[in-house]
Amino acid sequence: MKIYRYGEIPLSTLLIRTIETSGVSDTVREIIDDVANRGDEALLDYARRFDGAALESLEVSQEEIDRAYESTDPAFIKTLETAAANIRAFHERQMEQGFRMAGPDGSFMGVKITPIEKVGLCVPGRTAAYPSTVLMTAIPAKIAGCRELVMVSPPGADGRQPDAILAAAKIAGVDRIFRTGGAQGVAALAYGTQSVPKVDKLVGPGSAFVAEAKRQVFGLVDIDMIAGPSEILVVADETCDPAYIAADLLSQAEHDVLASAVLITDSMALAEAVEKELSRQLALLPRKDIAGESLDKNGKIIVTDDLPSAVEAANALAPEHLELCMDDPLPYLALVRNAGSVFLGKSCPEALGDYLAGPNHTLPTCGAARFSSPLGVADFIKRTQYTYYTREALARVKDDIARFARKEGLEAHARSALIRFEEV
Amino acid sequence: MKIYRYGEIPLSTLLIRTIETSGVSDTVREIIDDVANRGDEALLDYARRFDGAALESLEVSQEEIDRAYESTDPAFIKTLETAAANIRAFHERQMEQGFRMAGPDGSFMGVKITPIEKVGLCVPGRTAAYPSTVLMTAIPAKIAGCRELVMVSPPGADGRQPDAILAAAKIAGVDRIFRTGGAQGVAALAYGTQSVPKVDKLVGPGSAFVAEAKRQVFGLVDIDMIAGPSEILVVADETCDPAYIAADLLSQAEHDVLASAVLITDSMALAEAVEKELSRQLALLPRKDIAGESLDKNGKIIVTDDLPSAVEAANALAPEHLELCMDDPLPYLALVRNAGSVFLGKSCPEALGDYLAGPNHTLPTCGAARFSSPLGVADFIKRTQYTYYTREALARVKDDIARFARKEGLEAHARSALIRFEEV
Repeated sequence: MKIYRYGEIPLSTLLIRTIETSGVSDTVREIIDDVANRGDEALLDYARRFDGAALESLEVSQEEIDRAYESTDPAFIKTLETAAANIRAFHERQMEQGFRMAGPDGSFMGVKITPIEKVGLCVPGRTAAYPSTVLMTAIPAKIAGCRELVMVSPPGADGRQPDAILAAAKIAGVDRIFRTGGAQGVAALAYGTQSVPKVDKLVGPGSAFVAEAKRQVFGLVDIDMIAGPSEILVVADETCDPAYIAADLLSQAEHDVLASAVLITDSMALAEAVEKELSRQLALLPRKDIAGESLDKNGKIIVTDDLPSAVEAANALAPEHLELCMDDPLPYLALVRNAGSVFLGKSCPEALGDYLAGPNHTLPTCGAARFSSPLGVADFIKRTQYTYYTREALARVKDDIARFARKEGLEAHARSALIRFEEV
Repeated sequence: MKIYRYGEIPLSTLLIRTIETSGVSDTVREIIDDVANRGDEALLDYARRFDGAALESLEVSQEEIDRAYESTDPAFIKTLETAAANIRAFHERQMEQGFRMAGPDGSFMGVKITPIEKVGLCVPGRTAAYPSTVLMTAIPAKIAGCRELVMVSPPGADGRQPDAILAAAKIAGVDRIFRTGGAQGVAALAYGTQSVPKVDKLVGPGSAFVAEAKRQVFGLVDIDMIAGPSEILVVADETCDPAYIAADLLSQAEHDVLASAVLITDSMALAEAVEKELSRQLALLPRKDIAGESLDKNGKIIVTDDLPSAVEAANALAPEHLELCMDDPLPYLALVRNAGSVFLGKSCPEALGDYLAGPNHTLPTCGAARFSSPLGVADFIKRTQYTYYTREALARVKDDIARFARKEGLEAHARSALIRFEEV
């Protein structure tokens, strides 16, 4: 992996920032139209065509879910439950309460929090069938109080989804599960079919097809975000163990050849040692081809004069994952303005956050951390404002309302206040 | 206005729900590309072409802003200040604090709140040059702590924006103001030009051109929402004064021929009396042509058997504005799940919320209240997660991380935890 001096290459080239879906846009539009028109029949056809599965039913029965749970290695069930408990504890802290405040003369106003009623969870299949995704998307929705959580995930050629996915869904409290994925799963949730209920919002990661389908149905339903390639920025000082840093970078690189793993350090010695460690550890990985290509193409090590400029680079890049590896990371956290999730200290590999710590792993990519947030309870609730005015309270402001409305040329607005006092 | 019995026409036809921008999509794309390429020069050309203004400079100077403020009727300045104080008080209650929670063995995690740095405000010109829009978009951003608020608004043929708009911007604390609007204003904020700074998020209403431009730049920057035609649903019982209800319906109808004003009541007597009042009051309005066409096309009165079914209809429609007009509205508010802003009681015309009460008037339309919220402080901040683990805390969960990672086929993830204990 190449070592650069800070400033030698433009910051903007450090992380991969393309979400390429234009090539699939027409195909996706056809699939969506087809599902909107033919419903279940279209879903069954796509299961045959894309998943090689001849399905008897689209919905997974409670018995099948229970059986999958029973068939799952009990040690893994325990791990799922530990993770779910931590995710729950963290997200419970995010629940919003709304407020009511008093105004003059007996008036009051406030905000009332209501869960979004029906939520769709898109869970990828095959090699990206991650039970962690099920926990991370379903648990915040459950805490928000959503009435129905509907999961879609593609079946294997045998018509079944992995046991671990179904077990995670059971633990997270998913209400209904369907055997369909990709663009057709998104379309089913957005339009509803004979079997699949139409939802108000859909969340979850996926291929370019899923990303493009979400973009196309946005408006008809709400979506969480369009996720781009995964990214990590590690900021480390000379006291760090190069083997740990290399392992963390590789854990990102193994995801995808488009993933970006970047180290910024103020120590040339650490930079060189990490570079060596990467070669050594890469050779030991089952996914060394993917990780190797990702490092080759997108991996970089940058050497700065000091750590604050490394954090400033992080703010400019707004990375999805940011590790601050040093003995005393809190002063640096105080400098962070733009990042999805920050991992602090030397015992905090990013993989801890992917699974166990509790914070969400569905995070803004492509610099979206400048303006958006990790998936959380806020994504599954909405605020409704309310205002109550007494006659006395309205009397105080009626002339202001009329003056404002007339300034804007809206006489009927003025009249709606004044008529209550027989002034029009 | 026609009176229907509940169930006689499908609920889904009650409010107008189309955001038509497809016809302008190519034009908007050309404008955006042009501004992205030519910057200020393109903006000056569009000011000439669309606004008929030969501009000397794009930015409005502080002297011009101060002069506009001085030239504004002092009574209106006072009204602006009253409104701003109420909007501030309501939105200050929305500020989020983040949290930190302790985990085992000295670990902790939390959420840190950071304002979005640069925000763009799109303020329409000509007949829709509403100072209220300036207050409603700028004040929440200011409370969130955004570093720079950049406003764009089209100039008149004399190259100037209305004094009231500039005065409102001064009161709300807008930092910079530019003489450009429409799709070109959106493009300038999204790409930046020699004069106009590139922002992270842009908010505000506008024409079909602005709506389509926001849609096209979404991703490059964040946007608030794509606003559709305005809607009001009034739920009223027999004790209401028909003149007040008619005035409230008209205040919505005068906005736009596409606006929808609908009354649902359990009283046929009220329905008939409101119908008569509408004709009487309509004739008195300066904008009677617009209001009349809106009522003709989109206005409806529905008579139900009881008020709870009227509220259920509101939940199904998720209206932008909902009035609950009766002596004791709170039990009905408790039933409301989907609405942007609710106005309670008989002395609470919707116009109160447009200007004075404090809650925001930028609201989800087209049924988006099922899944989205009024504009507020939450739109101008983002959450960053952080996690700190000690070596002891990591030791507790390292095996869970490894088990989870291996279940997902991600060995490098497992190794990043285990390597810290020399277990790989």
